[in-house]
Amino acid sequence: MDLAQRVLSGDIRGLARAATIVENRGRAAEPLLRELFPHTGRAQLIGITGAPGAGKSTLVDQLAHLLRVEDKKVGIIAVDPTSPFTGGAILGDRIRMLRHHADPGVFIRSMATRGTLGGIAKATTEMALLMDAAGCDVVLVETVGVGQDEVEIARLADATVVVLAPGMGDDVQAIKAGIMEIADVFVINKSDQPGADRLEREIKAAESSVPVLRVVATDGTGVAEALSAIRNYLQGAGRRERSIENWSLRLREMLRDRVLESYSHLDFDAAAAKVAAREVDPYTLLDQWTSK
Amino acid sequence: MDLAQRVLSGDIRGLARAATIVENRGRAAEPLLRELFPHTGRAQLIGITGAPGAGKSTLVDQLAHLLRVEDKKVGIIAVDPTSPFTGGAILGDRIRMLRHHADPGVFIRSMATRGTLGGIAKATTEMALLMDAAGCDVVLVETVGVGQDEVEIARLADATVVVLAPGMGDDVQAIKAGIMEIADVFVINKSDQPGADRLEREIKAAESSVPVLRVVATDGTGVAEALSAIRNYLQGAGRRERSIENWSLRLREMLRDRVLESYSHLDFDAAAAKVAAREVDPYTLLDQWTSK
Repeated sequence: MDLAQRVLSGDIRGLARAATIVENRGRAAEPLLRELFPHTGRAQLIGITGAPGAGKSTLVDQLAHLLRVEDKKVGIIAVDPTSPFTGGAILGDRIRMLRHHADPGVFIRSMATRGTLGGIAKATTEMALLMDAAGCDVVLVETVGVGQDEVEIARLADATVVVLAPGMGDDVQAIKAGIMEIADVFVINKSDQPGADRLEREIKAAESSVPVLRVVATDGTGVAEALSAIRNYLQGAGRRERSIENWSLRLREMLRDRVLESYSHLDFDAAAAKVAAREVDPYTLLDQWTSK
Repeated sequence: MDLAQRVLSGDIRGLARAATIVENRGRAAEPLLRELFPHTGRAQLIGITGAPGAGKSTLVDQLAHLLRVEDKKVGIIAVDPTSPFTGGAILGDRIRMLRHHADPGVFIRSMATRGTLGGIAKATTEMALLMDAAGCDVVLVETVGVGQDEVEIARLADATVVVLAPGMGDDVQAIKAGIMEIADVFVINKSDQPGADRLEREIKAAESSVPVLRVVATDGTGVAEALSAIRNYLQGAGRRERSIENWSLRLREMLRDRVLESYSHLDFDAAAAKVAAREVDPYTLLDQWTSK
């Protein structure tokens, strides 16, 4: 059985191998993704983002648990390298902690966050396609919502959940400012703690049209309601438009990566030495390279 | 006097206008940067990164103060949108707080962090070139060291300072893990607080070859020693190699942006609609677009 067929059959080892090919970047994964692509489009991609310490991983765990109770197949992609996930089939060795036995209905992959600019968004998108092809009904993508890339990844999902928690101080307030506008659903985690009411008021004052759900992820309180709110959003108008918008953005990124390959013969280091010595300016070099 | 000449003469309004052109991305700034480029290469670019709350802005303020005492001209680029800088000529209106009168020997620009992937790194690099051309001896670039872009920006500097502080909890420990390896100098801020000794031991255990300096940025303690350590690094071997490496990376990014322009006639939205409907896979589209 070839690798595409193994992925389509939901084979864990096949999926793990495909995930590694995708993570190595470049075009090695392209024949595989091309073959799988017609079998994708079913999974709902849900981005979960928020400041460090907001409890994103715990929420993702609980959402996955609820989805498993419904017998849904779940993919989890952790772009946040600190995520300690608990139950599920680990695709590769990037996950640090594992509490329970592996559930073959949950695929988990933690992504390396280092590499070229933009590379992590591409790899995350491709990983979600793999999980989609492997039969996942839902793919949860957890990112720590502080960097531009992480925000972009969350934005590329079908629905974006921003997780906040009370009592995280001024710095977190500042981080929040950058991600408030990408939320389709707000979740206030640790909502039994002091400051939750005030946080809820602040969010509603800032983004009155976005639903705000209160949960205590550690014991599961309110998580079912949060899942319902996410589903309400996914069933609402505009989902098709959003999917097209996202693909439009992805196509641009993919094209950018592709065209750069035709310049792989260039000796960037030699050129850089001349630029560093101010023997030539970079704009003149670009003119020379692109005028064939 | 044209804009390039105004920048070269250190004119604040000219520099502010040039900064806005650079921030608007695209190629509008290219003629200006091409003209200025031969006059650059003198400024030392120092990246200051670290977790939110570590006290980066205060340290940058103190470093700028010390450099001003030596009559150096200083540029400050704040990629961290929460940075409240105090003394200096604000280039544009992005800075929220301003305690002192403007010092014409300090140029400050806060960068918008939203935009296309990688755009902020390019804009920051170009902003540093502007400040270099305007006669800055040192350009300090402050980034919050949690996102990939921010780490890349810090890495593109001539020297990278990672700022840590005791007692910031497990999340910060996790963030630290991503930026430990890019440090040329570690600064422990708030080093009079409990946990500073332990933090110093941890850093030295993890990265024994990198100098660790202790400061209390709020009152200036140890900042002169930190500046000396940064200068020691800058005078050390390998600076030329690092500059070439950085330019090599930048040239690749610039080429990627440039070549994408020749595809600006493509209707990405129409293509995206077909992809979203699974009428075509993205890889087949890319083949069509790139085979002329």
